[in-house]
Order: sequence, then C-alpha cells, then structure tokens
Amino acid sequence: MQRQRIPVELEHCTRLLDHGPTTLVTSAHGGRSNVMAASWAMPLDFSPPKVIVIIDRRTFTRALVSASGEFGLQLPTRAIARQTLAAGSLSGRDADKFAATGLLTFAAQAIAAPMVLGCAAWLECRVIPDDSQRHDIILGEVIAAYSDAALYSANRWHFGTDPADRTIHHVAAGHFFATGEAFDEAAPGQAAT
Amino acid sequence: MQRQRIPVELEHCTRLLDHGPTTLVTSAHGGRSNVMAASWAMPLDFSPPKVIVIIDRRTFTRALVSASGEFGLQLPTRAIARQTLAAGSLSGRDADKFAATGLLTFAAQAIAAPMVLGCAAWLECRVIPDDSQRHDIILGEVIAAYSDAALYSANRWHFGTDPADRTIHHVAAGHFFATGEAFDEAAPGQAAT
Repeated sequence: MQRQRIPVELEHCTRLLDHGPTTLVTSAHGGRSNVMAASWAMPLDFSPPKVIVIIDRRTFTRALVSASGEFGLQLPTRAIARQTLAAGSLSGRDADKFAATGLLTFAAQAIAAPMVLGCAAWLECRVIPDDSQRHDIILGEVIAAYSDAALYSANRWHFGTDPADRTIHHVAAGHFFATGEAFDEAAPGQAAT
Repeated sequence: MQRQRIPVELEHCTRLLDHGPTTLVTSAHGGRSNVMAASWAMPLDFSPPKVIVIIDRRTFTRALVSASGEFGLQLPTRAIARQTLAAGSLSGRDADKFAATGLLTFAAQAIAAPMVLGCAAWLECRVIPDDSQRHDIILGEVIAAYSDAALYSANRWHFGTDPADRTIHHVAAGHFFATGEAFDEAAPGQAAT
C-alpha cells in the first residue's frame, strides 16, 4: 500500500526523534547511493532543527555523507525491521545495499540521497561541518521533514493497532523493542489530562 | 520495594541506551546537587564506553556538570514517569529539585552526584572535555554501570508484565511511550531464532 506523506513543520520536526527510535541513514554521491541502520541518532537543537548521528568513519555511508554534505534520516516501521537489520549488517561499499536488503526508495525533496519507503517519517539533512566529526559525530540541519499521514500528524504520533506500523528500537544483534503503550503525565502545576 | 542492583560490564554498557529511553541526569558540585530529565542522550562509542547528552548551557545542571566534570545518567521506569516529567519542567537553581519532585537517591560508586532510585539502570560518567560543548553537547566516558537485576542482566533486558517496570520514552509535553513489545529479527546469513 502506498501511503500518504504529509509535511512536518520544521520547528517541531525534532519531535519525530524524541522517543529514540532506530533510524535509517541514506546517502548518495558520484553515482553511488547507500543505506545504513543507525540506532545512535537524536535531536541536537530546535531552531534551526538539528540532529546528531554517529556514523563510523570507516563506513561507506560516512564517505558518501562527507562527500555530498547531505543525508536522509528516516524512521523504519516494524514492517521493514528485518530489512533494517540487514542494512545494519552489510556493507554497501561492494554491493547495492538497496538491492541486497530489498528496501525500496523514492526521490527526496531537497537532497540527492534516496528516501526509504515503509518508514513512519523522514528528515532530509544538510551536514554542519564541525570538529566533533573526529568522534564519529555527524551534525545535520534538517531542511525538509514529512511523515506518514496515518502515523504522525499535527505534531503527534497516532499509532494504531497494527504492530507493523510501530516505530522500532534496536537493542543488539536482532533484538528489538516496538514503540509501546502511549501514556500521559501532568507536569507540575498542570491539571492531569 | 528496594531492588537489587547488579554490575553491568562496561564493554557492553552502552547497550542500556540503544533503545533510546528517556534519561535522568544527576549532578553535584560545591554542596549543591541537581537532577534533570534528558530525552536527548545516547551512546557515542563502545570502547571505552562513551555517551552524548545534550545539556543546555543555561541550565543549573550544566553548571554543576561543567564544574565537577562528572554526571550520573540513569533510565527512569514508568513508576517514576511523573517525577521525571517534573524534573524536566522545574529548575534546580533556586530550589532542591529532589525535594520538589520527590525523587529519592542513593550514593554513586565513583562520582559525587547522587543516583536516582526507581530506575532500570545507571551509568556514572566522567566528562570528556571537547569543543563540541559549544553545541550544548556533553561527552561522557562511562566509569561505572549497573542495573536493576530484575530488569536487565547478562546484557539483556528482561521486562516483565508490570507496566511500571518499563523504561519510558518522552515525546513532548507529558506525552510518553513505554518501551513496547520485544521481537527478534534474523540478520542476513543467520537462521531465524
């Protein structure tokens, strides 16, 4: 099923990563493209929206991201958890990892890297050059953001009953947690809702 | 109920953060101590184990962490989700945030900051001085790690049926997800397990 993608306001887009989901990083340069899984990705700042992703400097993704100055960051759902694990287990240096994993893509809006179908949300990012790259830290400014309309709209997650639609949290060696039960707490001075 | 805490091997301790849970950051210096909630915390490296936490430079926690060169990083369970939200909503500059939130503590092993009871796991960290601090990025090397024996042992999470025991993922404004259903996928070349 092709799902509808809707824009996410840039000023709120880091919220997509607040719950710490596993991500896929896509990249492209010089006629090559690649996808890798990254559990170590999170927001850095709200305005302009920035993210941090740890990308080992020995990876092919790192070479493509550094050369192009861009990357795609997206939140796979459980429907593509197996392919996400594969994207974290293979190297794209010697083979087309999209073909090897079966991950399908569509064209990004503002960057050359392809974006992965079957995700809950997508962030297109421009690399912020920084000394912290010596720690394998890549900083990115988000320049476009959108979501699966059925799963995230009006700056809120709306996971339904289908387990395949949940975002995922990889722990190690193929062990995952799905994003779980939603619950609310009241901050001090707020009425409980 | 007082729960048993057991050591976590440092070489595997970053796994505690792989699923992207919300954390509490504790700090102490010059007779003052504090606690804040941090959704933006994740691993940076395996060996030595390192973490990244985003701590706004205007916060009291940042002052205490910078002055002491240490911080505690711990994973609150849903049992203390309300207090965790409060710890992210108040400032400790003018009041004792432990008293204000009701969070209870115990003495750390290797750092001066207190550690919070009711968490699933704890990491004691030493600040790694770095230029990236201008982005509000604090890098820490983990020097001690331990877990609630009922929830994490032998480098694996073992969440049971009590929802209060789950780690939590704050999204925004008091909206949380609990860590959800565990599931396994097989990597390429592995038999499914």
